[in-house]
Amino acid sequence: MLKDYVKSVQPDDEALKSALKDERAKLFGYQMRLKEARLPVMVIFEGWDAAGKGSVLGKVIKNIDPRFFQVATMDAPPTPDEKRRPFLYRYFVEIPEAGKFKFFDTCWMKEVTEGMCRKDFSEEDYLKHIDSINMTERQLTDNGYLVMKFFFHISKKEQQKRLDALRENKNTSWRVSEEDLWQNKHYNIFLDVFDRYLTDTNRSNAPWYIIDAKDHKWAELQVMQFLNQGIETALKNSAYAVPILQNTFRMKKMPLLADIPLDKEISEDEYRSELKKLQKELSDLHNEIYRKKIPVVIAYEGWDAAGKGGNIKRITEALDPRGYIVHPIASPEPHEKARHYLWRFWNRLPKTGHIAIFDRTWYGRVMVERLEGFCSENDWQRAYNEMNEFEKELAEWGAVVIKFWVQIDSDTQLARFTDRQNTPEKQWKITDEDWRNREKWDLYEAAINEMLQKTNTAFAPWYVLESVDKKYARIKALKIVVERLRKACKAKS
Amino acid sequence: MLKDYVKSVQPDDEALKSALKDERAKLFGYQMRLKEARLPVMVIFEGWDAAGKGSVLGKVIKNIDPRFFQVATMDAPPTPDEKRRPFLYRYFVEIPEAGKFKFFDTCWMKEVTEGMCRKDFSEEDYLKHIDSINMTERQLTDNGYLVMKFFFHISKKEQQKRLDALRENKNTSWRVSEEDLWQNKHYNIFLDVFDRYLTDTNRSNAPWYIIDAKDHKWAELQVMQFLNQGIETALKNSAYAVPILQNTFRMKKMPLLADIPLDKEISEDEYRSELKKLQKELSDLHNEIYRKKIPVVIAYEGWDAAGKGGNIKRITEALDPRGYIVHPIASPEPHEKARHYLWRFWNRLPKTGHIAIFDRTWYGRVMVERLEGFCSENDWQRAYNEMNEFEKELAEWGAVVIKFWVQIDSDTQLARFTDRQNTPEKQWKITDEDWRNREKWDLYEAAINEMLQKTNTAFAPWYVLESVDKKYARIKALKIVVERLRKACKAKS
Repeated sequence: MLKDYVKSVQPDDEALKSALKDERAKLFGYQMRLKEARLPVMVIFEGWDAAGKGSVLGKVIKNIDPRFFQVATMDAPPTPDEKRRPFLYRYFVEIPEAGKFKFFDTCWMKEVTEGMCRKDFSEEDYLKHIDSINMTERQLTDNGYLVMKFFFHISKKEQQKRLDALRENKNTSWRVSEEDLWQNKHYNIFLDVFDRYLTDTNRSNAPWYIIDAKDHKWAELQVMQFLNQGIETALKNSAYAVPILQNTFRMKKMPLLADIPLDKEISEDEYRSELKKLQKELSDLHNEIYRKKIPVVIAYEGWDAAGKGGNIKRITEALDPRGYIVHPIASPEPHEKARHYLWRFWNRLPKTGHIAIFDRTWYGRVMVERLEGFCSENDWQRAYNEMNEFEKELAEWGAVVIKFWVQIDSDTQLARFTDRQNTPEKQWKITDEDWRNREKWDLYEAAINEMLQKTNTAFAPWYVLESVDKKYARIKALKIVVERLRKACKAKS
Repeated sequence: MLKDYVKSVQPDDEALKSALKDERAKLFGYQMRLKEARLPVMVIFEGWDAAGKGSVLGKVIKNIDPRFFQVATMDAPPTPDEKRRPFLYRYFVEIPEAGKFKFFDTCWMKEVTEGMCRKDFSEEDYLKHIDSINMTERQLTDNGYLVMKFFFHISKKEQQKRLDALRENKNTSWRVSEEDLWQNKHYNIFLDVFDRYLTDTNRSNAPWYIIDAKDHKWAELQVMQFLNQGIETALKNSAYAVPILQNTFRMKKMPLLADIPLDKEISEDEYRSELKKLQKELSDLHNEIYRKKIPVVIAYEGWDAAGKGGNIKRITEALDPRGYIVHPIASPEPHEKARHYLWRFWNRLPKTGHIAIFDRTWYGRVMVERLEGFCSENDWQRAYNEMNEFEKELAEWGAVVIKFWVQIDSDTQLARFTDRQNTPEKQWKITDEDWRNREKWDLYEAAINEMLQKTNTAFAPWYVLESVDKKYARIKALKIVVERLRKACKAKS
C-alpha cells in the first residue's frame, strides 16, 4: 500500500493557502455539530520519524476549542506498569468521549511495527496483534466512533536531510534519538514493515490516509481535508445499523436456568471446615499467582438478592488486600456513558499478578441495557460477539477469566426482598428499582439464558452458583477459583 | 476461520420447527419492505460439494414471490466465451436489482478456491483475485447492496457418506462427479484453501456466515436467521454515508481545461492524407489485436456539440464491423438505474480481441449525476476511486483503455448550437436540455477539471482532443488509438 502510494499534486502556494483557510473554518464549525451529535473522533497520527506529525498536529488543534480535544502522546514504549496489562490497554483507556476529539501522536501501529523491525516480534505475534487491532477498530466504528488514521510519508533522503538539520542546530539536536538514526539507516526494512501493516489494517470502516509530508503546509491541508470529509460523512450516519457478525467462538454446553436444580445445600459443619480449608488454599495460590504474574478476572452476575456480596466477601477474606480490588459496577457515570461500553472495564483491568473482582459486569449490556432500552437492538445483538472478543483478549494475555452466575428462584428472591424490607439494618439494600426489575423476571430470564448460551466460551466460561443455600454457593465459588488458579499456576511452572 | 469454526447447538426438533416457521414468516414479510426500500440483496451460497446448498436454497426461495428473486447458478467453470471477459464479469452482470433478491449457487469464491486446490493459480493470481473480490464486495455494499455470504460446512466423513448414498441410488448416481470425489479425497487441501479464503474475505461490510450443514432443516434455519437479521439491519441504513477511501492510484499530470490552447488546426490536404494513412494502420492493427486477443475500451466524453460522433465515426470507418461495437450511453433505463451504476458498463465490456467504444461513459456519475443531484454527494465523491478501480480491473485483464475528453470553448458551442437550431436537418441534434446544460457551463467545467485530475491514471489515461477544428481532433484521436494499439501488440508478441 505504501509502496504503491502516489502523491497527489500539491497546489501552488496561493491555492494552498486559500484551501487551508476554508478547511480550518470547516473544522472550527464542526466542533459544535460533533458535540450535538455526540460523535467521538479518534485521530491517529503515524509515520516516519521526523515526518512532521507533531507539527501538523499542533496546527490542526489550533482550530478546536481546548474543551473539545485532547492529545495522547503514545510514542514512548510501554512503561513497566503498562507492560503488565494487555497490549491494547494503554490505548483503549485513551479513547475519546462522545462529541470530542482525541488525537493520538502514534498509536498501536508503532508498537507493532517497531516490534517487527527490531525483531522483537515473531510472525505469530504480528498476526495476533493485527487481529486485535482490526477487532478493536471495528468495535469502535461499530459503536459509533469515527476513526481517522493518517500515515506521514517522507523519503529516505528527506528524512536524512531533516535529521541532519536538527542535529546541526544546538537547540534541536536533543530531538534526534538513536532510534531515529537507526530508522533512517534501515529505511527499507521499515518501508516493508509499514507497507505490510498498512495493507493488513486498511479496512473500509477505518481506512488509512497516506499523507505526503514533504511540505508542512501541504501535509496540514491533506490532513484537514481528509479529516473534514470523514467528519462530514460520519455526521450523516446517526442511525447506522451495523452488520452482526457470526459469533463463532467455541462454546461450552450451558443448561437453561429453568433446568438447574436449586435444592443443593451444605451443612453448617461442612461449610465451616470447607471454608477454612479453601480459604487457606486460595491464600497460598494468591501468593503464587503474584509471583508468577498471572492476572485474574472474576466476574459476578446474578439476580438481585442472590447473595453476590456475601459470596465475594468469602473470596476476598482469603486474599492479600494489596493484590486484589473489588469493582462494584453501577449504572455508568456520564463520562463512562460517553465512551464505548467496554471502556470502563478496560479501565479497571488488573495488572499481572493481581485479581480484579467485578460485582456486576459488562454483561449489563445484554441484560439491563437491553431490557430497559438503554441501547439499540443492533447494539446488544452485536454485544455477545464483542464481549467474547474482549474476554479473548484477556485470555490471550494470560488472564484467568472466571464468570459466576449466582442463581436463585423467584420465590427465594421474594422472601429475601421482604426480609430486607422488614429489617431496618437491611433496608438500604432494597430499592423501588429492585421491585420494578422483579416484575420483569421472565424477560430477564430469557435474556440471561440467551446471554449464557452465547458467551459461555471455552476461554471464559460461566459457572452457575446455586445460591438458595448461600453457603453452598460460597463453597462452590471458592472451589472453582482454587481449581482454576491452581491449573493456571501449574501451567506456568 | 473455518478451522476455528464452532457449531452452535442445534435446537431440538420442536424448537427448530417453530423457529423455522417464525423465520419463514419474517422473510415473507420482508419482501414488500425490500421493494419499498429499493434494497438489492445478493445472497451467496458456497461450501463443500454435497453439503446441501441447493436443497436449502430451494427451501429459502419458497418464501419469496417469484417476481422478487432470481437464482444464478455459477458452479460450472467459465465457458470459453466467459473466459474472454474479465474474471469478475460473469458475476457482476448477475448482481440483483434494487428491491430484489439474487441467490448465487456458488459465486467468485469457487473459481478461486478451485484454482488454488488444482494448482491452476499461482500465489500472485490468488492475491490479485482476493483484491478484486474484496474491492467488488466493498463497492456493492458502499452502493447500498446487502451482501450475505454463507459457507456450508460438513466434515470429510459426512461428505463421503453423502456421496456414497448418492452413488448407490440409480436415480441420483449421475449427480456425483469426478470432481466431488476428488474433493472428498483431498478434503484437507480444500479445508486449508477454504479457510484461507474465508479469512481473507471476511470483512465487516460483507462478513461470512458459516453454516453447520449436517442437518438440512437446521442448516435452513441458520441461513434464514442470518438472512433475516441481515435484511433487518440493512433496512435501517437507508441514509448511510460511506467513508471515502483515499484515491491513491498513480496519476499522470493533467492541465486544467482553461489552460489548454484551442487554436490547433490542420489543413484539408494534410487531413485527407493523414486520415487515409492512419485508418489503414488502424485497420491492420484491428486484425492484429483480434489475433492476439487484446481487448480494447475507448471512452468518449466531451461537451455537447464538441464533435464526439464524427470523431468516433473516423475510428469505426477503419474497423471490421464484426470486431467492434459502439455503445451510445444515455440516461440509464429503469432496470439499469436499479443496479450499481457501473453495472451497465460491465455488461457492455468487449470480449478479448474486440473493441468497445463508449459514446459517453461511467463518468456521467461525476458530471451530470453530480450536478443534477441524481446521486448523493457521498456517492459521487466515492466514485472517482471506484471508477479507477473499475478501469484497473480492465487494465489488469489486459485491456487497452483509452479515454478521450473532446474539448471546445463556450463560444464554439454556442455557434454550433445556433447552427443546429437553424439547419433543419440538424435540428434533431439539439434539445432544450442542451441549452439548459449550457447555462451550467462553469459548474460543469469545475466538475470536469476535478474528474480529469482524479482519474487520469497511468493505466487508463485521459487524452484531450482539441476539437474547435474537428479535423484536428479526429487525426489526434486516430494517432493515439494507433499508437496505443501498436504498443499493446508489441508487448504481446
